[in-house]
Amino acid sequence: MTDLLDDHFHDACGVCGVFGHPEAANLVYLGLYALQHRGQESAGIVSVDERMFLTNRGGGLVADVFRRHELATLKGQQAIGHVRYSTAGGSISPRNRQPLVVDTAYGGMAMAHNGNLVNGVPMRRQLERRGSIFQSTMDTEVIVHLTALSRRKTFPERLVEALGQVQGSYALLAMNEQCVIAARDPYGVRPLVLGRLENGGYVFSSETCALNLIGAQFVRDVEPGEVVMIGPDGLESFFPFPARERRLCIFEYIYFARPDSIIDGVNVYASRKSIGMRLAQEHPVPEADLVIPVPDSGVPAALGFAQAAGLPFELGIIRNHYVGRTFIEPQQTIRHFGVKIKLNPNAHIIAGKHVVLVDDSIVRGTTSRKIVKMVRDAGAKSVHLRISSPPTTHPCFYGIDTPTQSELLAALHTVEQMREYVTADSLAFLSMEGMYATVNGSRTGYCDACFSGRYPIPLPRQEENTQLSLLQET
Amino acid sequence: MTDLLDDHFHDACGVCGVFGHPEAANLVYLGLYALQHRGQESAGIVSVDERMFLTNRGGGLVADVFRRHELATLKGQQAIGHVRYSTAGGSISPRNRQPLVVDTAYGGMAMAHNGNLVNGVPMRRQLERRGSIFQSTMDTEVIVHLTALSRRKTFPERLVEALGQVQGSYALLAMNEQCVIAARDPYGVRPLVLGRLENGGYVFSSETCALNLIGAQFVRDVEPGEVVMIGPDGLESFFPFPARERRLCIFEYIYFARPDSIIDGVNVYASRKSIGMRLAQEHPVPEADLVIPVPDSGVPAALGFAQAAGLPFELGIIRNHYVGRTFIEPQQTIRHFGVKIKLNPNAHIIAGKHVVLVDDSIVRGTTSRKIVKMVRDAGAKSVHLRISSPPTTHPCFYGIDTPTQSELLAALHTVEQMREYVTADSLAFLSMEGMYATVNGSRTGYCDACFSGRYPIPLPRQEENTQLSLLQET
Amino acid sequence: MTDLLDDHFHDACGVCGVFGHPEAANLVYLGLYALQHRGQESAGIVSVDERMFLTNRGGGLVADVFRRHELATLKGQQAIGHVRYSTAGGSISPRNRQPLVVDTAYGGMAMAHNGNLVNGVPMRRQLERRGSIFQSTMDTEVIVHLTALSRRKTFPERLVEALGQVQGSYALLAMNEQCVIAARDPYGVRPLVLGRLENGGYVFSSETCALNLIGAQFVRDVEPGEVVMIGPDGLESFFPFPARERRLCIFEYIYFARPDSIIDGVNVYASRKSIGMRLAQEHPVPEADLVIPVPDSGVPAALGFAQAAGLPFELGIIRNHYVGRTFIEPQQTIRHFGVKIKLNPNAHIIAGKHVVLVDDSIVRGTTSRKIVKMVRDAGAKSVHLRISSPPTTHPCFYGIDTPTQSELLAALHTVEQMREYVTADSLAFLSMEGMYATVNGSRTGYCDACFSGRYPIPLPRQEENTQLSLLQET
Amino acid sequence: MTDLLDDHFHDACGVCGVFGHPEAANLVYLGLYALQHRGQESAGIVSVDERMFLTNRGGGLVADVFRRHELATLKGQQAIGHVRYSTAGGSISPRNRQPLVVDTAYGGMAMAHNGNLVNGVPMRRQLERRGSIFQSTMDTEVIVHLTALSRRKTFPERLVEALGQVQGSYALLAMNEQCVIAARDPYGVRPLVLGRLENGGYVFSSETCALNLIGAQFVRDVEPGEVVMIGPDGLESFFPFPARERRLCIFEYIYFARPDSIIDGVNVYASRKSIGMRLAQEHPVPEADLVIPVPDSGVPAALGFAQAAGLPFELGIIRNHYVGRTFIEPQQTIRHFGVKIKLNPNAHIIAGKHVVLVDDSIVRGTTSRKIVKMVRDAGAKSVHLRISSPPTTHPCFYGIDTPTQSELLAALHTVEQMREYVTADSLAFLSMEGMYATVNGSRTGYCDACFSGRYPIPLPRQEENTQLSLLQET
Repeated sequence: MTDLLDDHFHDACGVCGVFGHPEAANLVYLGLYALQHRGQESAGIVSVDERMFLTNRGGGLVADVFRRHELATLKGQQAIGHVRYSTAGGSISPRNRQPLVVDTAYGGMAMAHNGNLVNGVPMRRQLERRGSIFQSTMDTEVIVHLTALSRRKTFPERLVEALGQVQGSYALLAMNEQCVIAARDPYGVRPLVLGRLENGGYVFSSETCALNLIGAQFVRDVEPGEVVMIGPDGLESFFPFPARERRLCIFEYIYFARPDSIIDGVNVYASRKSIGMRLAQEHPVPEADLVIPVPDSGVPAALGFAQAAGLPFELGIIRNHYVGRTFIEPQQTIRHFGVKIKLNPNAHIIAGKHVVLVDDSIVRGTTSRKIVKMVRDAGAKSVHLRISSPPTTHPCFYGIDTPTQSELLAALHTVEQMREYVTADSLAFLSMEGMYATVNGSRTGYCDACFSGRYPIPLPRQEENTQLSLLQET
Repeated sequence: MTDLLDDHFHDACGVCGVFGHPEAANLVYLGLYALQHRGQESAGIVSVDERMFLTNRGGGLVADVFRRHELATLKGQQAIGHVRYSTAGGSISPRNRQPLVVDTAYGGMAMAHNGNLVNGVPMRRQLERRGSIFQSTMDTEVIVHLTALSRRKTFPERLVEALGQVQGSYALLAMNEQCVIAARDPYGVRPLVLGRLENGGYVFSSETCALNLIGAQFVRDVEPGEVVMIGPDGLESFFPFPARERRLCIFEYIYFARPDSIIDGVNVYASRKSIGMRLAQEHPVPEADLVIPVPDSGVPAALGFAQAAGLPFELGIIRNHYVGRTFIEPQQTIRHFGVKIKLNPNAHIIAGKHVVLVDDSIVRGTTSRKIVKMVRDAGAKSVHLRISSPPTTHPCFYGIDTPTQSELLAALHTVEQMREYVTADSLAFLSMEGMYATVNGSRTGYCDACFSGRYPIPLPRQEENTQLSLLQET
Repeated sequence: MTDLLDDHFHDACGVCGVFGHPEAANLVYLGLYALQHRGQESAGIVSVDERMFLTNRGGGLVADVFRRHELATLKGQQAIGHVRYSTAGGSISPRNRQPLVVDTAYGGMAMAHNGNLVNGVPMRRQLERRGSIFQSTMDTEVIVHLTALSRRKTFPERLVEALGQVQGSYALLAMNEQCVIAARDPYGVRPLVLGRLENGGYVFSSETCALNLIGAQFVRDVEPGEVVMIGPDGLESFFPFPARERRLCIFEYIYFARPDSIIDGVNVYASRKSIGMRLAQEHPVPEADLVIPVPDSGVPAALGFAQAAGLPFELGIIRNHYVGRTFIEPQQTIRHFGVKIKLNPNAHIIAGKHVVLVDDSIVRGTTSRKIVKMVRDAGAKSVHLRISSPPTTHPCFYGIDTPTQSELLAALHTVEQMREYVTADSLAFLSMEGMYATVNGSRTGYCDACFSGRYPIPLPRQEENTQLSLLQET
Repeated sequence: MTDLLDDHFHDACGVCGVFGHPEAANLVYLGLYALQHRGQESAGIVSVDERMFLTNRGGGLVADVFRRHELATLKGQQAIGHVRYSTAGGSISPRNRQPLVVDTAYGGMAMAHNGNLVNGVPMRRQLERRGSIFQSTMDTEVIVHLTALSRRKTFPERLVEALGQVQGSYALLAMNEQCVIAARDPYGVRPLVLGRLENGGYVFSSETCALNLIGAQFVRDVEPGEVVMIGPDGLESFFPFPARERRLCIFEYIYFARPDSIIDGVNVYASRKSIGMRLAQEHPVPEADLVIPVPDSGVPAALGFAQAAGLPFELGIIRNHYVGRTFIEPQQTIRHFGVKIKLNPNAHIIAGKHVVLVDDSIVRGTTSRKIVKMVRDAGAKSVHLRISSPPTTHPCFYGIDTPTQSELLAALHTVEQMREYVTADSLAFLSMEGMYATVNGSRTGYCDACFSGRYPIPLPRQEENTQLSLLQET
């Protein structure tokens, strides 16, 4: 799987928050920049200064949304921010940019959320029935409403009461005038870490790579089901929800997270390499001359495959990193144009060779098919596609933008049918056993629903989940 | 009074809505354009197309916010729009741009509001206490919440129940998927008219000038306390509120409305001219050589003054209409610079003359003082300032952005003290009697609170009206 | 004539320059702002600071092109600027924005030009034949080339040699590292004045209204054929060209100049009023009830007409000043839409009245026709159109953007035919005698070619003047 | 060497041209997109349609400068384009964006140029002395002037006469109304290739990667000293200049070119890998645990090094590709912040290891020093820096933006001194012999002046080369 323009898939969001630093918003800005791979469609930061909630949100990359002037207005010692993934349908409506900021009986509140509520639509309908209004189509607004409706005395208590009513995944940052709260759902589907700044302030972030950039020390993961509040009295931790078995999204290791991040004690890059090594053992290609990654996400697994197989690793496909948002295609047909906008075959390396091509997943299969054809056209004698994850047979309901099941190639086809479709000489996927063996050694602790259909968080009845699409803004 | 950059005052909002026309949003766009004098800080339109609420809102002038592409996306047969006044504090926060659009248990709803609720803050606090969240600082969101909370069966019933709980002024347009509703507060403080399109569709607008531009026939005023619903079954009218004495803001005649508009059967231009004639009778200037208006608002009254006094009317002050939003001043001091950015004396006309200067009001007095000095510097032998309204002694709580009472020059000073402050040779205001005699002949039917302190809609206790300023967005 | 979007005509350019002031560029910016009525399509300023030529040019209004940051970079004690008129064909190509800035053997040079060379194209062809390259389609580049080619010793000498080779109209500002030079063609077709700043620095400007805004004292007109150099040694004046009879464009009085400007000792507003009075004497309308101007340009003449005729002057047409650049029309036909975007009839004033409508000129006649119809539709019993200038029968070749002769209504039609076309009850133009009598009393000293066909500067053979349109930039 | 924001170096430009295709500008757009690595500061395209030269140029990336609308206006069957490198001083002045387009006695002409004239300044001064004016500070304008001045009969003859007067490097595209001409300097310093489109049209491009994207067949290199004209009569080739020894910039192989390009028959990726292998032989690191590239440019050489040394190749440094143009730094000091904006250490891989770090060059040394320190801070036991080129001891005068000699670390320091400065445990450079042995086997055919000081094209006397910096535009 590659994140080509015509095959969006598997994008998440990222959150970052800082408490207790005079440049809180600036540090959040840097943190979001390090988390940019988790979402490129919109970015937003809210800070609190003298009881004022100062907000800036916009469409596009972090470095484009925030200019010096905008950032300078985000004063205060605490701030939270959010980057958002790109949906298939195009750009994010302004009303769906995060963090959300509202005024309540308890004062101002801001919220930034990575994840997805499986009972978001029914909860929304229920809230609407009691008179609540919604200005966005985001799940997050449900949590905001529930928090505002709570009669509990303290902010963390109100947030906990709200979270007790929703099911789904969340790595959440909430902020009122005095504190920043981080919450992770009881299954821990989405990652969230805690760090410490040199001046004693705290940072929350989706991944450790944001800590590294801003010079913060990694303290620990926010635990599944944990609520961490940082306020004037320091850090407090709660575990208000019944214990659940940890279910971190295993796809974070395979695709989402940045290679230098450490999730749950495991280095992402190392786990990807191990996966590649295991893949080489499970599905060797005896006739192969070399191993080529589909860049950038397939690189570590391909490296592992090559090392394990004793094959040369070569950059046989070059990625152009200057892809713009509105690329203008020619009217005439250019061979492999759709792929070559991002990926270009290095024919010199490929020609006359038996090639192992390593990618991280197959979603619809259309892009894989294009890449295989392009590599073959570049002169490969044979193309053996190796996928560093099991077949993606089920959609995600926990915060990832996937196609419906009927669009997932693996849902309705055998591996042989898939091979035929993508026109590869051979096709093989990492086994579930292999995946677990390499990532952490035991078959528990992860959500693998997209491969297995075993959804750890119960899904609602389908009819309750009608699509929300009433409000659009340009 | 002039709308100089350094003396904002007396701006309102404008609303326009269309039902039953294939180019609904385009007609609303034109209507807002004709109402641009009522607000230059933000503009927005919401249309409904196949149950989708399509929204575009932005900062600035109508012609800048809507480009061809944006307008083309606003499909559907019904649309409402809004232009917003400039507040003293600068630009409108994106979250405070109208119309508001929300999703509720009854489906989508949009609302555009000209006016001000006197119990807006306490109602907001009450709603917050029951768990409602607010994403803006606008009164309108209170009405939206109350409408969504109503358990009545139909949209107009719910809106009526909501409006029954608020006090204040409103010329309001609300829209759900099937109909557009117009409502005017029981006192009729803000104007609102109904028109008919050639194709049988309907238009609502703050002023008749919008009907003229889009070729609609004026049907009638929406009456004070009336709720008009236009839907698939045509037009229905309700008078759900107890009868009140009509209290149209008399300042619409003096300053707000466009001269070619007809409000309550009275042509604005004609009423301003009559006012000027009456002013000439009440406060003649025997030694005067000519009459000069402070453009543009003072022109009709000055014409009337000149005609009644038998004096020449001359454009002794030239207005530059190209004022930008972020005018860059020189660091050095330039004489009268602040005024001359907009108004330039025509010294040739002024020099050596006894001048009657006609303006519509004095707020803080700072601008009047600058203009008088500038005219004197241009060579006037004497400057006699005549104001086409009574002294502005009280702030407005019904939708106009006025300074607090302590900043109103007339609140704490005699006319003689004011004359001294503005450095005029003489100063006189229209009498209350004169104002009523010319505008409509009887002393009832208008809100004149800014001149008299007689507030027709009871004001809340001061402590309940704390300023809302928690949420800011750039 | 009105400057409606669909009938562009009669626009000029404006220039402003400052020498010897620490805020030179800022003062030029203000000067251009005051001259904005002479051109709204592009604006540019060049300053010199420590031998660097600092430039900013852009499309649109002065207040939009220059933001605080851009203006702050334009350091130095001398600067020149330019505003450009809108051409019929749309926006100004970036390459045609002024001032031009080039590097030559003598160092840097900047030039800003209001006017038109009648031998511009042949001179350009001649320069090209000797190897010169052109990056714009502007005449000004011809003068720049000729100046750079000159072998004379000093900057003013080189500029004079260049100007000696061109024929046409120019009010020109040129600047090298040490001085600012102003030059006016021997006929003095375009206006240019000299002013003095409080600190002793100098200002040049197309009109006196720019001096007023920046607080400069008017010193005198730059004389026809005069070259004024201001440098470290102060002001020097030259008259290097053979004496010619002065031929100021009389249309400056009728339409171009701002009413508060004084040109050639004559106040523009006063001359327009006198014209209106004369027009009332020449072509009275005995049955008239009132006099209505076509705003804004027709206002002073209408005032004069009304005073002379003893008729009431009324604002029967209201102008909307918020016209944007890209106004989006509805697809359906709206009656009088094209005119009503800018001008709206005040039916209350007009209905049932015999109306004298005063405008400054008729070009193609299409707009006049629309206005007459609109006024009649508003209920006028009769519409008597009075034009405050003689019939426009000939195109301008001296710097004004006019249609070709065949498009000028007056070129091929009698007044009666024109009356019929514009559908007025009567139509009359000011006589040539009347125009001269009111503007200055004698029939000399002006260019009246657009009325008379008497071109004071000989025109080139037509074949030499092929249109230049090779280079386009967006 | 890395292209970090604080150590700009070694950037070039890219050119692309198409003749004989109905979507000429669109194909040039795609070609420039593929050449984006050669310049990110500005992009421009000129097409010819019915004798009109249509131009669009702007600052930034290709995909940002050209939107659908802009590209659609660039009609015609022939077009040329240019991408420009970033200079140390910041953004490209609008007047220095290419292609240049001018009008001459022979009609319109456009020119795009990659390279640098060593006699550019003296030629410019000479042209200025004969009266030529310059609107940019680019060498290219010199060639344009000389071409326009030529009295030869045909466009290629005039261009040849112009090129005969200049010394320096150029890969040049020129276009008049009928043809596109490509020219490469007699030494062939900058690359330029010819390709053929499916419809029979032709393409010129700096590198073959552009041909691949648009589906053109590679035909051949444009030869050093060759002038290729493509017009209505097809392709013509000339060799008008005396034969010179070929001197392709060897740095194209080391850094500039895209890995999948083929220059002079040699695949760039393969040559970089060979260089890395040779480097491993010349300067082995016996104690090393792994090899880490400085991404992205160091990757192929590091791969080669690892393969030759039998060491694991690991992505120990992760590159963030989302770097924006105006990154906002925090006010407080963050450790390694300047480097970490682009490059992040993967501590998990590095910690406790003896690391070979492979980069392509050392310029000032400041960035190398930062990277070494960052890697050591990430836990490396030792850091052995290997550079895949000889020490850069001399500046480039042939089109590359390098610091002056005094700023080049290698110019004044021994390798041991350099090692100490960059704080590496060991430092070694590829030998000249090694470089030649791997790139092509013989020690001729390349310009290696930056390593050797042997400048193949004679340099002018220093005093003639004063910096041009008179004209600046924002």
